Amino acid sequence: MAKSVLTPQAENYPQWYQDVVAKAEMADNGPVRGTMVIRPYGYAIWERMQRELDDRIKAAGARNAYFPLFIPESYLRKEAEHVEGFSPELAVVTHAGGRELEEPAVVRPTSETIINVFFAKWVQSHRDLPLLVNQWANVVRWELRPRVFLRTTEFLWQEGHTAHGSRADARAYALRILKDVYEDFAVRILGIPVLVGRKTERERFAGADATYTIEGMMGDGKALQMGTSHELGQNFAKAFGIQFQDESGANTFAWQTSWGVSTRLVGALIMAHGDDCGLRLPPRLAPTQVVVLLIKDEGGAAKEAASMTESLRGAGLRVELDDRVGTSFGRRSVDWELKGVPLRIEVGPRDVAQGMATVVRRDDQSKRQATIDGLAGRAVALLDGMQEALHQGALDRRQARTVEVSSVEDAVAAAQTGFARVPWDVARDAEDDLNAAGLSVRCLQRADGGLPESSAEPGLVATVAKAY
Amino acid sequence: MAKSVLTPQAENYPQWYQDVVAKAEMADNGPVRGTMVIRPYGYAIWERMQRELDDRIKAAGARNAYFPLFIPESYLRKEAEHVEGFSPELAVVTHAGGRELEEPAVVRPTSETIINVFFAKWVQSHRDLPLLVNQWANVVRWELRPRVFLRTTEFLWQEGHTAHGSRADARAYALRILKDVYEDFAVRILGIPVLVGRKTERERFAGADATYTIEGMMGDGKALQMGTSHELGQNFAKAFGIQFQDESGANTFAWQTSWGVSTRLVGALIMAHGDDCGLRLPPRLAPTQVVVLLIKDEGGAAKEAASMTESLRGAGLRVELDDRVGTSFGRRSVDWELKGVPLRIEVGPRDVAQGMATVVRRDDQSKRQATIDGLAGRAVALLDGMQEALHQGALDRRQARTVEVSSVEDAVAAAQTGFARVPWDVARDAEDDLNAAGLSVRCLQRADGGLPESSAEPGLVATVAKAY
Repeated sequence: MAKSVLTPQAENYPQWYQDVVAKAEMADNGPVRGTMVIRPYGYAIWERMQRELDDRIKAAGARNAYFPLFIPESYLRKEAEHVEGFSPELAVVTHAGGRELEEPAVVRPTSETIINVFFAKWVQSHRDLPLLVNQWANVVRWELRPRVFLRTTEFLWQEGHTAHGSRADARAYALRILKDVYEDFAVRILGIPVLVGRKTERERFAGADATYTIEGMMGDGKALQMGTSHELGQNFAKAFGIQFQDESGANTFAWQTSWGVSTRLVGALIMAHGDDCGLRLPPRLAPTQVVVLLIKDEGGAAKEAASMTESLRGAGLRVELDDRVGTSFGRRSVDWELKGVPLRIEVGPRDVAQGMATVVRRDDQSKRQATIDGLAGRAVALLDGMQEALHQGALDRRQARTVEVSSVEDAVAAAQTGFARVPWDVARDAEDDLNAAGLSVRCLQRADGGLPESSAEPGLVATVAKAY
Repeated sequence: MAKSVLTPQAENYPQWYQDVVAKAEMADNGPVRGTMVIRPYGYAIWERMQRELDDRIKAAGARNAYFPLFIPESYLRKEAEHVEGFSPELAVVTHAGGRELEEPAVVRPTSETIINVFFAKWVQSHRDLPLLVNQWANVVRWELRPRVFLRTTEFLWQEGHTAHGSRADARAYALRILKDVYEDFAVRILGIPVLVGRKTERERFAGADATYTIEGMMGDGKALQMGTSHELGQNFAKAFGIQFQDESGANTFAWQTSWGVSTRLVGALIMAHGDDCGLRLPPRLAPTQVVVLLIKDEGGAAKEAASMTESLRGAGLRVELDDRVGTSFGRRSVDWELKGVPLRIEVGPRDVAQGMATVVRRDDQSKRQATIDGLAGRAVALLDGMQEALHQGALDRRQARTVEVSSVEDAVAAAQTGFARVPWDVARDAEDDLNAAGLSVRCLQRADGGLPESSAEPGLVATVAKAY
C-alpha cells in the first residue's frame, strides 16, 4: 500500500534507501557537509541498540568512561601508522576563546591516543590489569562522499579500549567482544546473519596487529562491515609508555585491544530487512513492537483500543496507541508500515462488536482476525515468529547470493551481485585488482567458518564483495 | 579513618574538592585546557543521573534526538543576543579534510540555532505542536578558569528544545520540566534541597524572555545553579522562521522553551554531601549501594560473603562484592569510604561463626552488628533512612546559613557564608555592587517561595550568594 511512497528497490536501491530514511523520519542531512540530524524515530532505534550493546559490554566486564573530544595534535603523531591512517580525515580547531590556539586541537576521529596517555598513568602493576574501558561518544572523520548513517562526517559510536597482562589475554578479550557482544547482538537482536572473520593486512585498522570483523549482507548483495575488534599488540603501549610491573617485578609493556560499532548499524538495519513498503524492524529491537490503531472512535472502539494497549503493555511489550482519528486510517497505516513497526492491531467498531481485532504482520503483510480475549499472548507468539522469520529471510538471501569460485575473474563476476568465496591463496596477490574493480576482501575465514590465527594459515577462504 | 587522605574542608575547601575528585577516582584533567576525563566511577554516577533524568524527561513527553556537533558560523549570528552571549567562548574548526573550510564550523556551545533551523522545516501546522525534543550531547565553551565538573571547556549535558502553539503552553511546559524533572530529581534522588526561582534580567539566558532555575547550597555555603529552564518567547521562532498554521488558517510564530542540566551536577553532588572522609552518595543515586567487604577468606567467610551479595541483589539492591583479600582491609575500607558507598557490610570468620556481620553507614559512620538472617530487609531500611538523613542534613545547613536582611550592606555581609534573602525592591538597583563584591542574585521568589510571573511583581525576595 505504501509502494508509491518509496522508489522501488529494484529500480534504484540507493534512492530507495534515501527515501526510507526521509519518509520514516529517521534522519535529515545537517548543514555542515556530511553531518546528520538523527530524528526522534531514528534515535529511538539507536537508543535500543545502545541499551542492548551496553548490557553486553558490561557483562563482558568493561566500564564506561568519557574522554575529551579535543586531542592535542601532537598525540596523533606518537603512533606513526595511526596518524597516517587518519590525517586526511581530521577536523582541526585552530581558534578558541577568541584567540588562535598555540597547539591546534584535533576533533577525535577515535580515541586511542588520548585514552592511552591516561592508561599510561593508571596502569602501574599487574594488579591494575586487565583495564577494560568503554566510551559512548561522537567522533568526526571528514567524508568526501557522505551517506546518512553509513558514512557521515560526525557519527555516534562506542569505542572500547583495554589493556592486558599478556598477548593471550588480549586476544581472548578481542574475540570475546567480537562474539559475545557484536555477533550475538547482530544475530539475536538485529536478526542479521554475519560472517565472523579476520581482515587482511591491507584492510586492518591502522596500528593494529589484527582486526576481526562481522560482515553482513545488505538487500542489494553488498557487504557492510558492522563492527570490528582489534588486537593492538604492544604498538600503542610502546608509543605511549603503558608499562606494568609483573609478578616477578619486571616492567613489561601491556597488550591491548580496541573495538567499536557505530550509528552505521542503523543503516545496516534499514538495508538488511527493508522492503518496498519501508522498514521492517525485528521485534527484539523495535522501539515500538505493536501499534494499536483505532480506526474510528465509535461503538466503544476507543475504550477497547486503550484497554488493549494496557494489556499488551502488561505482557511486557512496547506498545503505542494511535488514536489520531482526525488523520485518515490509510495514511496512518502507511506511516506505521514505513516505520516498520512489527505488529499493527486495527480496532474499529465492527471488530469490537464481534470481540475481534485485525492483526497485521509487517514482515509478510499477512492479516488475520483474532479474538481480543487472549490477544497479548497471541502477539507475543507472532513477534517471536517474526524475529525468526526476518533472520531466516536474510540468511536465505545470503545463501542464494554467495558463490564458491576458484579464480579472481570468477570472483569479480560473482561479487557484482553478492559474495564470492575464493581461496585466499588465489586472491592473496590480487587485492589491487579487486580494489580496482570496486571490490575488496571483506574477511578471511577457515574453510569451516572458524577464525584464523593469522592470514598465513593454509587453506583460508576470502570473501570478496562490494561494500558500503 | 580516611581523614589523612584528604585536605580537611575547614582548612581549604577547594583543595578538599580536588582531592575528593582525584582520590575517589572520579575524573582527571584533560590535556587540552579545561577538558576533563571522566573516570569509570565518576561516569557511573553520571549514568545513574542520566537514567533518572531521562525517565522523567520521557514521562514529560519529550523524545530524544541528535543534532550535529558542528554549526555553521552564520547560524549563530541569526539571533543577536544569543551570539553576543556566546561569542567569546566559541571553539572554531577552520580546517578539515586537509583544507581550509569555506565557512568555519563552530563547535556547539548549545544547540538552539541548529535545532531551530530544523524546527522551521518540521513545524507547519498546529497539528505538529507541541514539538518536544531532547538531546544528550557534549558541548564546548572555552573556559578561562576551568574547574573539573563545575566549569569545563567540554561538558556533557541534556538540552531540551520545544515549540508550542501558545505562550501559555510554552510557559507551562518550561515550568513542568523545572518542577517535575529537575526539582523532583534534585530533591528525591540527589537529596539536595533547592530554591526554585526566576533569574533576574541580568542573569537570564541570552535570547530568553525568562529563565527559571533550581539553586542548591553547597557545603561551603555557596550557591550552585543546578538546572535552568527557559521561556524563549517567539525570539528564536522569528529569527529562524518557525511558523505554523493555526486552526483558523493564520500563520503564527511558535512559542518555545529550552532547558538543560549538565555534568556539573556531579560537582553539586560532591559538594552538597561530601565530608572529610570523601563522598557520601544518596542511596537512590549511588551506582553501588552496598559493598560486601570480605575481611579474610577463612572459616567459610568467602562463601557467606558471596551468598550475602546474591541475597542483597535479590532484594533489588546494587551490590558489589569486594573479596580482594590480597589488599589490606584498612585500605579497602578507606577506598569505599572515599567513594561514598552508602552501606558497607564487613564479613569475616569471627562474624560468620556467630551468624553476624558488621554494617557501617557511610553518612554518620555508625556501625552495628546485624544477623545475617534478614540482612537484606535491614539494608533496605537503612538505605531509606540514609536517603532521608542526607536530605535533612543539607536542608538543616541551608536553614542555618540563610539570613533574612533588609539592606544591601547586610546582604553582602551575610552572603560571605551562605544565602542572604533581601527584598528585591532593595536589591534591584544594586546588582552592579553585588557583582563587584563577588556576589549575585541567584533567583527571585515570592515571599511564600512561589515562582513570580515577572521580576516586576511587588513583594519579591532576592536570594544573594556567592556562586560556583
